[in-house]
Amino acid sequence: MLSNDLRQRAALIRPIPKMTFHEQLERAAGLVETRLDALLGNGGGAPVAKSGTLAEAMRYAVLGGGKRLRPFLLMQSANLFGVAEQASLDAACALECVHCYSLVHDDLPAMDDDDLRRGRPTVHKAYDEATAILAGDALLTVAFEILGAASSNPDPTIRAELVLGLAKAAGWQGMVLGQALDLSDERAGLSVAGVARMQALKTGALFRFACEAGAVLGRAISPDRAALISYAKAFGQAFQLADDLLDAEGDASALGKAVGKDAARGKATLIALLGPEQARERLRVLLQQAEAALAPFGAQAELLVETVRFAASRTH
Amino acid sequence: MLSNDLRQRAALIRPIPKMTFHEQLERAAGLVETRLDALLGNGGGAPVAKSGTLAEAMRYAVLGGGKRLRPFLLMQSANLFGVAEQASLDAACALECVHCYSLVHDDLPAMDDDDLRRGRPTVHKAYDEATAILAGDALLTVAFEILGAASSNPDPTIRAELVLGLAKAAGWQGMVLGQALDLSDERAGLSVAGVARMQALKTGALFRFACEAGAVLGRAISPDRAALISYAKAFGQAFQLADDLLDAEGDASALGKAVGKDAARGKATLIALLGPEQARERLRVLLQQAEAALAPFGAQAELLVETVRFAASRTH
Repeated sequence: MLSNDLRQRAALIRPIPKMTFHEQLERAAGLVETRLDALLGNGGGAPVAKSGTLAEAMRYAVLGGGKRLRPFLLMQSANLFGVAEQASLDAACALECVHCYSLVHDDLPAMDDDDLRRGRPTVHKAYDEATAILAGDALLTVAFEILGAASSNPDPTIRAELVLGLAKAAGWQGMVLGQALDLSDERAGLSVAGVARMQALKTGALFRFACEAGAVLGRAISPDRAALISYAKAFGQAFQLADDLLDAEGDASALGKAVGKDAARGKATLIALLGPEQARERLRVLLQQAEAALAPFGAQAELLVETVRFAASRTH
Repeated sequence: MLSNDLRQRAALIRPIPKMTFHEQLERAAGLVETRLDALLGNGGGAPVAKSGTLAEAMRYAVLGGGKRLRPFLLMQSANLFGVAEQASLDAACALECVHCYSLVHDDLPAMDDDDLRRGRPTVHKAYDEATAILAGDALLTVAFEILGAASSNPDPTIRAELVLGLAKAAGWQGMVLGQALDLSDERAGLSVAGVARMQALKTGALFRFACEAGAVLGRAISPDRAALISYAKAFGQAFQLADDLLDAEGDASALGKAVGKDAARGKATLIALLGPEQARERLRVLLQQAEAALAPFGAQAELLVETVRFAASRTH
């Protein structure tokens, strides 16, 4: 049972309580879009005089699409501890830049070789391969430029901690390792545990950082931070499983990209290994785990509960 | 004239004054190599159980070669303000990781398409293209992991400032922009000023960061920081001009890579635009500018004077 005091606090810190989940998600995505637009040269920073192609390609990769789930998770996690949206927005944008860079590089011919992303030509198709590599590099770098700047957070200890956390999540023992494992020769023969580990690195690490960054920004006590990490782990697995189900079921319009490619490439997916029914059961369990992890926060975590339900429900 | 007091201080902070410049450079390179080896998984950090290919490729790209000029500049600049080598070593290693990532990506088929680097096959030749892209991504990311960690510097304000500085130097308005300009269609028709601007971004930005980071680590007063930046600007131009002269003169053994490629690709170089004689004169002027910038530091900056002379003398 929540105390009246907590209920009041929850009402206070949730910005516009009467919006639906989808309205809240869209509203936050709008904030992120506007801020990314400013951070990537529209208004903010020095104008890039010549060869604006690089900046254009970065903007093409980042703006005008995406649910901004990672930024939403970060901002909602921070909001649990009373951090205003504006105070977590830059960290959320930095995270989104890293996510978008990873998509640009993953789509390259030498990697997943995808022509379509969010229903549009991928960056190396819209521009060229060199520009896509450089735009990805620049998006990864700008994430740390955003986090390093005092404008993202006045406390240098928090800035340095977020830099460290994002670098670890995104790097050679996190997301990049996950992508390397996904492309490796060992990939085809992976077990359920092996695929889960690969996915925990490839897509899970950034979801975990999103929630952990919220805790860092909110100066959360250790058990609260641990609860958010548990939530994030279940969230990441649920998200990926839903994605795999969509891929297996071949709904290109829902995914906004080519479908059935994993199977066509001979990659073991959890759907193939478990079968669709067991995969759906696993998804239900993960959903329960994610919700259970949020229990300590009570009604304040309502939006995070809705977020994981949303992430999992994309299969329906 | 230096006061006796300054002379004594200079003697104190220069670690082993009787070594020659080349011995000092080699000694520092050895420190950097050992530390990079530890930072990239030999002893430090969690072992990468499966698919060690990514870590191997990162180590291949970073270890066992290079003069470590950027780390040397960083450590010597910091040393001007009494910062011990061990206290600037991690920042120096982070910078070297960024430099090495840029080489790995620049060598890719979609970019400069080089097969040879430091006399060895480039990363995409020794491994494959996907691994080279990912190893580059991971090296860029690990640089910020190193700078974000408290082990690199106990002061979070300094850590955040170095992160910001490195991200700006390496990113979309620094090194990556320089590489984009170098690859762009406009490249062939660039004037002397245009080529100089491109080079100031592509190679100059990291040299500037090296010296500025030394000032940050040493909590230098503003005029000292400005003096080091002037030095770094002249250094970067001198270094690049010497490189271009080597390339034009076709000494593959000194460069450790293929020569004459810029001209063969129809790229305007400063040598082609100025002619070798005027290029050499420009190099002499830059050398004077670099040395003049160091005047405020007196004999303490002797090693930095020798460093720019070394960078420029590679043409002889």
